[in-house]
Amino acid sequence: MSSRPFAALILAAGKGTRMKSDLHKVLHPIAGRPMLGHLIASVDALGAARKVVVTGAGREQVEAFVAPLGVGVATQEPQLGTAHAVQQGEAALAGFDGDVLILYGDVPLVRPDTMRHMLDRLHAGDKPVAVVLGFRPADPLAYGRILANAEGRIDRMVEYKDASASERAIDLCNSGLMAVRAADLWPLLARVGNDNAAREYYLPDIVMIARADGRMSAVIEAEPWEVAGVNSRAELAAVEADWQQRRRLAAMVDGATLIAPETVWFAHDTQVGRDVMIEPNVFFGPRAVVEDGATIHGFSHIEGATIRQGAEIGPYARLRPGTDIGEAAKIGNFVEVKNARFGKGAKANHLSYVGDADVGAKANIGAGTITCNYDGFLKYRTVIGEGAFIGSNSALVAPVTIGDGAIVGAGSTITRDVEAEALAVARGQQQARAGWATRFREAMKIKKAAKKAG
Amino acid sequence: MSSRPFAALILAAGKGTRMKSDLHKVLHPIAGRPMLGHLIASVDALGAARKVVVTGAGREQVEAFVAPLGVGVATQEPQLGTAHAVQQGEAALAGFDGDVLILYGDVPLVRPDTMRHMLDRLHAGDKPVAVVLGFRPADPLAYGRILANAEGRIDRMVEYKDASASERAIDLCNSGLMAVRAADLWPLLARVGNDNAAREYYLPDIVMIARADGRMSAVIEAEPWEVAGVNSRAELAAVEADWQQRRRLAAMVDGATLIAPETVWFAHDTQVGRDVMIEPNVFFGPRAVVEDGATIHGFSHIEGATIRQGAEIGPYARLRPGTDIGEAAKIGNFVEVKNARFGKGAKANHLSYVGDADVGAKANIGAGTITCNYDGFLKYRTVIGEGAFIGSNSALVAPVTIGDGAIVGAGSTITRDVEAEALAVARGQQQARAGWATRFREAMKIKKAAKKAG
Amino acid sequence: MSSRPFAALILAAGKGTRMKSDLHKVLHPIAGRPMLGHLIASVDALGAARKVVVTGAGREQVEAFVAPLGVGVATQEPQLGTAHAVQQGEAALAGFDGDVLILYGDVPLVRPDTMRHMLDRLHAGDKPVAVVLGFRPADPLAYGRILANAEGRIDRMVEYKDASASERAIDLCNSGLMAVRAADLWPLLARVGNDNAAREYYLPDIVMIARADGRMSAVIEAEPWEVAGVNSRAELAAVEADWQQRRRLAAMVDGATLIAPETVWFAHDTQVGRDVMIEPNVFFGPRAVVEDGATIHGFSHIEGATIRQGAEIGPYARLRPGTDIGEAAKIGNFVEVKNARFGKGAKANHLSYVGDADVGAKANIGAGTITCNYDGFLKYRTVIGEGAFIGSNSALVAPVTIGDGAIVGAGSTITRDVEAEALAVARGQQQARAGWATRFREAMKIKKAAKKAG
Repeated sequence: MSSRPFAALILAAGKGTRMKSDLHKVLHPIAGRPMLGHLIASVDALGAARKVVVTGAGREQVEAFVAPLGVGVATQEPQLGTAHAVQQGEAALAGFDGDVLILYGDVPLVRPDTMRHMLDRLHAGDKPVAVVLGFRPADPLAYGRILANAEGRIDRMVEYKDASASERAIDLCNSGLMAVRAADLWPLLARVGNDNAAREYYLPDIVMIARADGRMSAVIEAEPWEVAGVNSRAELAAVEADWQQRRRLAAMVDGATLIAPETVWFAHDTQVGRDVMIEPNVFFGPRAVVEDGATIHGFSHIEGATIRQGAEIGPYARLRPGTDIGEAAKIGNFVEVKNARFGKGAKANHLSYVGDADVGAKANIGAGTITCNYDGFLKYRTVIGEGAFIGSNSALVAPVTIGDGAIVGAGSTITRDVEAEALAVARGQQQARAGWATRFREAMKIKKAAKKAG
Repeated sequence: MSSRPFAALILAAGKGTRMKSDLHKVLHPIAGRPMLGHLIASVDALGAARKVVVTGAGREQVEAFVAPLGVGVATQEPQLGTAHAVQQGEAALAGFDGDVLILYGDVPLVRPDTMRHMLDRLHAGDKPVAVVLGFRPADPLAYGRILANAEGRIDRMVEYKDASASERAIDLCNSGLMAVRAADLWPLLARVGNDNAAREYYLPDIVMIARADGRMSAVIEAEPWEVAGVNSRAELAAVEADWQQRRRLAAMVDGATLIAPETVWFAHDTQVGRDVMIEPNVFFGPRAVVEDGATIHGFSHIEGATIRQGAEIGPYARLRPGTDIGEAAKIGNFVEVKNARFGKGAKANHLSYVGDADVGAKANIGAGTITCNYDGFLKYRTVIGEGAFIGSNSALVAPVTIGDGAIVGAGSTITRDVEAEALAVARGQQQARAGWATRFREAMKIKKAAKKAG
Repeated sequence: MSSRPFAALILAAGKGTRMKSDLHKVLHPIAGRPMLGHLIASVDALGAARKVVVTGAGREQVEAFVAPLGVGVATQEPQLGTAHAVQQGEAALAGFDGDVLILYGDVPLVRPDTMRHMLDRLHAGDKPVAVVLGFRPADPLAYGRILANAEGRIDRMVEYKDASASERAIDLCNSGLMAVRAADLWPLLARVGNDNAAREYYLPDIVMIARADGRMSAVIEAEPWEVAGVNSRAELAAVEADWQQRRRLAAMVDGATLIAPETVWFAHDTQVGRDVMIEPNVFFGPRAVVEDGATIHGFSHIEGATIRQGAEIGPYARLRPGTDIGEAAKIGNFVEVKNARFGKGAKANHLSYVGDADVGAKANIGAGTITCNYDGFLKYRTVIGEGAFIGSNSALVAPVTIGDGAIVGAGSTITRDVEAEALAVARGQQQARAGWATRFREAMKIKKAAKKAG
């Protein structure tokens, strides 16, 4: 939590034309969460007093996303530059006189720590009027440069096209992010002009305006990856890749084995324990928890599922939201689990669909078992008792309860409850016709020949 | 289309020893299409008047592949160098007096645009006798060098081993591709000698022979990736990787999201729309079309399938040739579809095989449903009406029709048509034996103990 | 085999704290085999006369692993440096007077050839007292340096922190591996002191002690990847990645096509033939053999399985231990095979579990077939005859035999043997109720509305 009240002002009015999308740019996801969601989560972690998004086209989509998150929405229309965009947030922040942290919806991964450093710097002894977030990219070519002294006090900010050769040799670049006290911000913005080629009002201008007043601004530095922006799907993929690489490394540092880290995809909130083994090609959607000592075999797709200690998942397991796999339980290949709990040591090893179910400890669900949980209108629950044994290729028509220790014979369609310790079988009688196959094959050969001929 | 008639002469006589394959080198695929197929498609796109492949060992394989494509085949046996190889094509081009574009079967990805530029250059004002395709590789070490002036007029072509230090410092290299008028080509080839270490007839020699006659040749430049050659499986993989990387970028530029682009494999003819979302690990075989707004979840394998607007596929969906998934329809996990149409909003969400079938709009196919389309001899069709509901774990024995709005009870094996709006059930009666499981377990424990003891 | 007797002494006493694991560091796997197993296999290949592991914490785990491999275990407790660690092996090597090869459990991939060169060098004409394994890393910063002449005779070994600027400019680094005659090793070790900052006894000190006696040591060089050490999960992943990359290249050199080599994972003992085609995303666990001309489609997971000539596997095939897929046989999507043999040309193309079974040549197993091999206590065998046809969605309850050429009707649960050429069917009668679906839907609509209202 930051010690002083601050407001987060997130600029998100850009058209995002290069995304070629009907979805607003800032709602495109990184690690399973919209970019805007990353920023909101970060400022929430710092205890932002107020949150405002400035948007333009696609306002409805943004509003629908932020509505439940306590974020105000302002509109910038037409779009006359970043200073103009920030100004559109003034009304939404009326009465707020703390610090304003200016962020960009398409620069989603700035660390909360970095944001806090920006706000802290604003209140350091030399009291800068603004704190600019700088970075030193591998290739600084196109960015505006920041000339600052060793203490980070800014001498000059200059657009690349206006920079001299010696200024271009400086590699400290402007990310655009800024922290300014509200009391300073609005008056300064009112003084920004648009006397430039694009006829736009530029936010960085407030630094030089304040300097003309004799008021200093400061720069602090971020890692380049924090301020990577997303203007195209390729950049979206690049930011995702970078995020994943850091997340994989963190999982390994915490004691998980990733045989091929580059083939494991985490969501923003995936939790992975110690001595977890993850084979190549595992995808985590949101809300997955993998406890210590669990094994995730390859080709598994996991979302909204808790996998408890020592459980074994996959290969080819699909766990969907509402899944809870108990300690040392096993979910094997081509098995889908949805909204279901497996008790300790329970197993569904092959080719099954287990949905809307409670599976007792040590129960064994045979290959090809299907819980028929849906009748086209409503969903119903299947309860399988502890130690029950469901024979292969069975269909359990919910709502239905299989008692503790009960056995269901292979190939059965179970429509009524089965008592504990009972055997239930529901299948047709086996009938045989000797020699039938020979006659069939002869007939088919004649049929095929006739077809060919005719 | 090129404005003047041209013939494509594709050299493919190399033994390809390093491939260690029974398959002819030029038939190894890139992006799901034989290398030779890429070249033929490219020259067809330019409207080649004639196409000839010069082959050696493995002629039968090449002939079988090109026969339906209107390509002539000439044989080079023995193999005495590239000039000799081109000469073997003369008879097949008898009577053709346009331009000849000399290509290599193991250099498959030259762009049609580049080929057109070669042909256009041949007819520019300074009328070169030959147009050579050059390139500037990152590491030019082993290639022959081209010395040319600023207009691309060639002063000298020199093999690396014969080049002086200053010539080696030149990074413009010879790809081997060439465009020459037929009227020039055959006489020049007749004058090429084999007075060299390998006793081979080299095609580039025609440039210096013409020059001795006072006739100039020109060079134009290709991107290095266009002229990358394939002599080993590792080079095949490298060219494939490079092709895929460019294809993925193109898909993103066109408005598709690829969460992990490096894990999506396209075929040469895959079509991907706008706002398509592709999760990690998706493989496209030939003839796949993904329309706007469709979602392809991870671990999907798609070939010969059309996926219409807003449809949702996978994870773990396998779509095989002849599949057409209607608008907003869903094919879920562990579902295989072959030669089947799904109407608008139809669903097969889990563990099913749907082959040779028509599935009506909004029909719902339950988990574990199998269309039994094959009796060991012939294949038959399954028709499922609009809004029909197929209960889980059902087998539909084709030929069979399930009427509109009909319901099939879970676990049924359906062998006869079901009327519209009817319920059909085909399953055994459920029978229970109380306490049977307890007795069985006791008996098994005794049996296991006896086994162990004995 | 090495010509003189040698003992392998493997140091494995490090705590491996950074692994954050309950599993001993040297038991973490690379390519499906514990690191320690790689070293033991390598020294076994050279015919090591004796093998000793020096361990500390986690001794029980190491002992359990090496017990069946003829390896002695010594304990180092407390851990006072590498020289001290080697000394702990002296008792276990009592009476052995050949060469001692000192290895590290967390440096698992040293080639047997390199080890042999070390031992051979020890007996070259100039008779070095010790042979040190050096390497030239891309970034030599932190390693100890070796100063040697052109013949590899060592002038000086120096820790990085003690090295002068000119010594630091040398890029020949010490891997720590060493070969020394037993007769020299133990007396030299006794003279090593711990007069250094860490108060540890360092193995390399024996080189300088011998040199003070006028006895020379030699260095030979390894590839950097051979001496890469594993101290964290990230390093484990890096060594795995490096191993895989070399293995993939070797498979391609041998004539296999890997469309996307970076997505194929081999185990340490995978065998892959010529003209094998492997699509993207294939994982091999231990003991897999793929014969010439076989095709492995994507998303396959293969362990303990032999795939014979021209067989076709996957996509989404899981082959588990004990599987033998005959010539030109096919295992298709969402099929699991365990401990089962498929004869020539047999097929299981879709959604099946075939476990503990023998499937005759040309037999066809329909979609959704399950062998019910387990009753909760014992496993039983299913035998399917040559040319038999198992209809879709069948359950075969083992022990059961389906005779040659027999046909099982779709949807059957087969509990008794089926004669050759017979047809067996076991399913319920199909019953229909006209208009039932309409009435059901009406009732459900009312029920849903009531639910909503109430």
